[in-house]
Amino acid sequence: MAVESVTGTTVTATGARQTSVRADEPDFDRIHDALLGSWKDVRLAARARTLDRALHRRDGLLVADHRARVTAQLQVLLDSGAVRLPFPAQYGGSGDAGGNLVAFEELVTADPSLQIKAGVQWGLFAAAILHLGTRYHHEHFLADAIELQTFGGFAMTETGHGSDVASIATTATYDPATEEFVIDTPFRAAWKDYIGNAAVDARAAVVFAQLVTAGQRQGVHAFYTPIRDAAGAFLAGVGGEDDGSKSGLNGVDNGRLHFTGVRVPRANLLNRYGDVAPDGTYSSPIASQGRRFFTMLGTLVQGRVSLAGAANAGAKIALQTAIVYAEERRQFVGGSGREEVLLDYPRHQRRLLTRLAGVYAATYTQDELLLDFHAVFTGAHDTDESRQELENFAAAAKAEATWHALDTIQECREACGGAGFLAENRLGQLHADLDVYATFEGDNTVLLQLVGKRLLTQYGKRLATAGPAGAARIVATEAVGAAAASAGVTALAQRIADGGTGAGAARALRDPAVQEQILLERVEVAVAEIAPALRPAPGVSAEQLAARFGEHQHALIEAARADARLRQWRAFTRAVERETHAPTRAVLALVRDVFAMQVIERELGWYLVRRRLSVSRAKAVTRLLDALVRRMRPHALDLAAAFGYEQGHLRAAIASGAEADRQAEAAAAR
Amino acid sequence: MAVESVTGTTVTATGARQTSVRADEPDFDRIHDALLGSWKDVRLAARARTLDRALHRRDGLLVADHRARVTAQLQVLLDSGAVRLPFPAQYGGSGDAGGNLVAFEELVTADPSLQIKAGVQWGLFAAAILHLGTRYHHEHFLADAIELQTFGGFAMTETGHGSDVASIATTATYDPATEEFVIDTPFRAAWKDYIGNAAVDARAAVVFAQLVTAGQRQGVHAFYTPIRDAAGAFLAGVGGEDDGSKSGLNGVDNGRLHFTGVRVPRANLLNRYGDVAPDGTYSSPIASQGRRFFTMLGTLVQGRVSLAGAANAGAKIALQTAIVYAEERRQFVGGSGREEVLLDYPRHQRRLLTRLAGVYAATYTQDELLLDFHAVFTGAHDTDESRQELENFAAAAKAEATWHALDTIQECREACGGAGFLAENRLGQLHADLDVYATFEGDNTVLLQLVGKRLLTQYGKRLATAGPAGAARIVATEAVGAAAASAGVTALAQRIADGGTGAGAARALRDPAVQEQILLERVEVAVAEIAPALRPAPGVSAEQLAARFGEHQHALIEAARADARLRQWRAFTRAVERETHAPTRAVLALVRDVFAMQVIERELGWYLVRRRLSVSRAKAVTRLLDALVRRMRPHALDLAAAFGYEQGHLRAAIASGAEADRQAEAAAAR
Repeated sequence: MAVESVTGTTVTATGARQTSVRADEPDFDRIHDALLGSWKDVRLAARARTLDRALHRRDGLLVADHRARVTAQLQVLLDSGAVRLPFPAQYGGSGDAGGNLVAFEELVTADPSLQIKAGVQWGLFAAAILHLGTRYHHEHFLADAIELQTFGGFAMTETGHGSDVASIATTATYDPATEEFVIDTPFRAAWKDYIGNAAVDARAAVVFAQLVTAGQRQGVHAFYTPIRDAAGAFLAGVGGEDDGSKSGLNGVDNGRLHFTGVRVPRANLLNRYGDVAPDGTYSSPIASQGRRFFTMLGTLVQGRVSLAGAANAGAKIALQTAIVYAEERRQFVGGSGREEVLLDYPRHQRRLLTRLAGVYAATYTQDELLLDFHAVFTGAHDTDESRQELENFAAAAKAEATWHALDTIQECREACGGAGFLAENRLGQLHADLDVYATFEGDNTVLLQLVGKRLLTQYGKRLATAGPAGAARIVATEAVGAAAASAGVTALAQRIADGGTGAGAARALRDPAVQEQILLERVEVAVAEIAPALRPAPGVSAEQLAARFGEHQHALIEAARADARLRQWRAFTRAVERETHAPTRAVLALVRDVFAMQVIERELGWYLVRRRLSVSRAKAVTRLLDALVRRMRPHALDLAAAFGYEQGHLRAAIASGAEADRQAEAAAAR
Repeated sequence: MAVESVTGTTVTATGARQTSVRADEPDFDRIHDALLGSWKDVRLAARARTLDRALHRRDGLLVADHRARVTAQLQVLLDSGAVRLPFPAQYGGSGDAGGNLVAFEELVTADPSLQIKAGVQWGLFAAAILHLGTRYHHEHFLADAIELQTFGGFAMTETGHGSDVASIATTATYDPATEEFVIDTPFRAAWKDYIGNAAVDARAAVVFAQLVTAGQRQGVHAFYTPIRDAAGAFLAGVGGEDDGSKSGLNGVDNGRLHFTGVRVPRANLLNRYGDVAPDGTYSSPIASQGRRFFTMLGTLVQGRVSLAGAANAGAKIALQTAIVYAEERRQFVGGSGREEVLLDYPRHQRRLLTRLAGVYAATYTQDELLLDFHAVFTGAHDTDESRQELENFAAAAKAEATWHALDTIQECREACGGAGFLAENRLGQLHADLDVYATFEGDNTVLLQLVGKRLLTQYGKRLATAGPAGAARIVATEAVGAAAASAGVTALAQRIADGGTGAGAARALRDPAVQEQILLERVEVAVAEIAPALRPAPGVSAEQLAARFGEHQHALIEAARADARLRQWRAFTRAVERETHAPTRAVLALVRDVFAMQVIERELGWYLVRRRLSVSRAKAVTRLLDALVRRMRPHALDLAAAFGYEQGHLRAAIASGAEADRQAEAAAAR
């Protein structure tokens, strides 16, 4: 069933498009191409793979059967060869760090459980052996991990410690007499928990524990630890239990593990960043225990990068489904005397199209994140600074993309009514599966707090390096700027610039320079407001500082979210600027403007309270957003189809054209 | 494991409280009592019933097994006698309309599927026979429906028409030759869809169809229609299919039905509001087809009333679980040098306590809604006006409570991290099950649009009845008030009243009269802004009016939400005023103020753009909210325990005190 889109392009519900673009019309093939990003071929190959029905989620399975199905699916992925991509050549790979994550992202359309199970086996277990281990570990453990000869867990999180990894309580005490580490779980809260593969499949685990040697604690290290025999029975000293059924991702067998005097050879310490000599002497290439810890954990940034992309891919299939349905489904007779399609209702446009703009923003952002990640992990641009920046970028992008995806999928579910609740349309299940993406691999709130702290640090550095006069200027324009603004200076300047007219304000708001300035102020002013209270000063105790930090925690996290959105806006704008075909560029700019206005609209109160926006410009934001969404509406189907997913990815009955057929039949019967 | 709350009350994790309240301390037993509402004994009896493990959801069942379990559970409910409550005495009831819904609300803690299945059988199928039928139907069909001798469906919604019931396409054509109605499904879009009981259990259905007699359409009517034989095979002319697996509520067997020349006796028309004589003559006590339709549908308002309460009950168990956990779980070392409990983090307080305030507001509102419902349905206060007001109230309350519950449960899930995702803690599943409450029994967006339209109508009536001078005054203070305000009048008046100080603004904001004024303006000004554009006028076509309506749809729906929250605020405030014990009243007022400030904070931009709040007062809102949440924090556990749910209702491992035990063990080991 084909739908005639308003721009004249014929778009089939499958997303396949017969294009005959005139020179003065937007070319959605170009947009499609740009959305595929820097690893286009890898992505298309991954999408071709996920059309394989053998990889698809099957509804209505018992937990045990779903798990068994996903375990078997890993072999299909392995047979495709794709999962070897990021590993060195001798293990069948090409070291394509970025491409690997692109392929991983796409697995979400097959089954999020498969994605996470693959992530556990190759992205965490095997990757830890690769990145935290050295030649011995590569030679002894890596091939078996990659080739699924050894299923493994990544045993970091404990029941009592998730986001605060530095405080885990499992210990690995070196015994020079036997040249072994003895792994112990001191109490119930230190059981490893939520560990993928641990309930059933894992035969080994990379166990994170506090390394103790010669009576000294050396911080968290990772140990390659066999946990079950070939038949699946726990080895001596190892115990555990099944985490049981979950509200999503039931194809992954999460479980708990605990250790009582479990001995592993000294060589099983993954010793890239810290080693113990036979006599128990500790050594490390990184002197500071803190920096060593963050370096080790930094190798895990790929989890965050990949979840940001995966969640966004989930949002895409939800949106494409909901928009196809909204373009076909009719309800209530409107002014035309005929029942209106849902997408002609302005509220429905607001619900879906603002989120469509958000998914576009997240997509362009993800490509930049992948490029940064690739540069660091292939060594092309691997410095302390670039790693820190990458971790920061990944934290912001992961929090923003996963929350946006949950919000989008939920809105799509509701926008499809009862149909959205049926398994045959996948929306509810998609939300249930992706739900935990917001809290695993770094709880979003904790991640944003890290981003916020870095914003504070950078602000402090700018002040410190600016010299007294420069610092005074920064404070004047940002922090004290708030006071100056309260005299109406900023708002007044805007009134003059806008010429006092609504049209002038709307024109100004579509100026990218103005948008960037507004979004930047949301971050910089917030940070400048918070910073003075949190600066260590004589007479202020650590406890007082912590209390003050608490008082500003909410504002700091909101500033970090604003920073994440500013990054998205910039990535989007760069994508607009890269587009050379004018009509296509105009559509992209329109979507970018919708993105910008909805971000600003959500924060109008913040701006107005600080007089960072004049009342007339603030009014213009909502009016402009409504107008832009209306202008975006004719392109909705094209913009969603430009994601490029086919029916085999969507697998939603309501996105198959069935609704259009029903409507046509009903209309003919009248 | 008992937790010492900051106020000195000892609260066990089970919610059982050993109270020794001093005269100057808040008495949470009084709060508990008030929260139980006007049907306290019915509610407590219902809660005692839902402790029965036989009624509890069991994880990891196949859809077929879950359905069978829930079907069997209906018999347990019937054996308890409770479900007969709303029916007349000769059917074992007492006509307690309100009490029946209270008991229904509480089923959500056992299994939302059981709640909805019970709602289908007794609240829709049997209730339709009662309310739309007359003596014949009561005598022939009602007892079997109540006593589970006949499982039935409520076949209203069609694949092509959900919220727009008036447009359903199924027909029931009267054949005077045989004195039968012939029921037909004209095309695929007219299949009955999402019908509870229809996939498996239903042997009959109340089928809604366009009544046609003597060549005339008389609008939607309901027909008692047998659909399956005793063995479960479809009767001749009836067909259907299973809606299959869903993303929640899998204990309910939803399905589709279609009819081809299905004949039912003339007497099977549920003829309270419209009848057909043997010769085919149509008659009705209600002349207008439109009013007849709304009167028939009005009998179904109980679905909306009960879902509002049920969703809120779901939010309560989620919050009680998350708050107990947040009070026990520790993470990251804070200023004290010890790991902090989660609830000491201001962001965590904001996340949970603002929502706790929202659940309090929804609880008091629900009791008022139940009282109104009871008065109408027992005939104590049953007028056209009171019915319309009830429907309007139910629409607003249902939309607000179901969305708030989903938001709250999701936040609780995330606030519990990985633990929140495990089935053993129920949060994710609760969200999945309650998800559809936002779109069934009236899509929330459609319901709010109805509320918005009524606001417009009322505004028009006020203008019409005020006389020219009065109308001018109304317009001046509300619509044109916006223009007057733009000169800064309102804001300036506030600045003077607040004495220009932050403390003055905070004092003013805690004044209930000020809160009410602010919340009321959000509704009235919005309506006054929209109304002029939507007034029919010479030269404005219906199509133009419809287009204008669309332009204002978003703003109108937002105004309706504001109206729903104003109702909540008023119900909350009445509850505060009813409390005579001063320290208890102070705590309730504190929670009410948190509710008010979070509602206002969300809309700051709206107020500031219209200069309905001064900048200094707007600033004070956020500052005050932060301060109030901090003040609420010591009472969090008591306030959550005051809901009164026991471990047997929560059934969450993390709310059992297990976490406190783990923390104590870990602390002892240091």
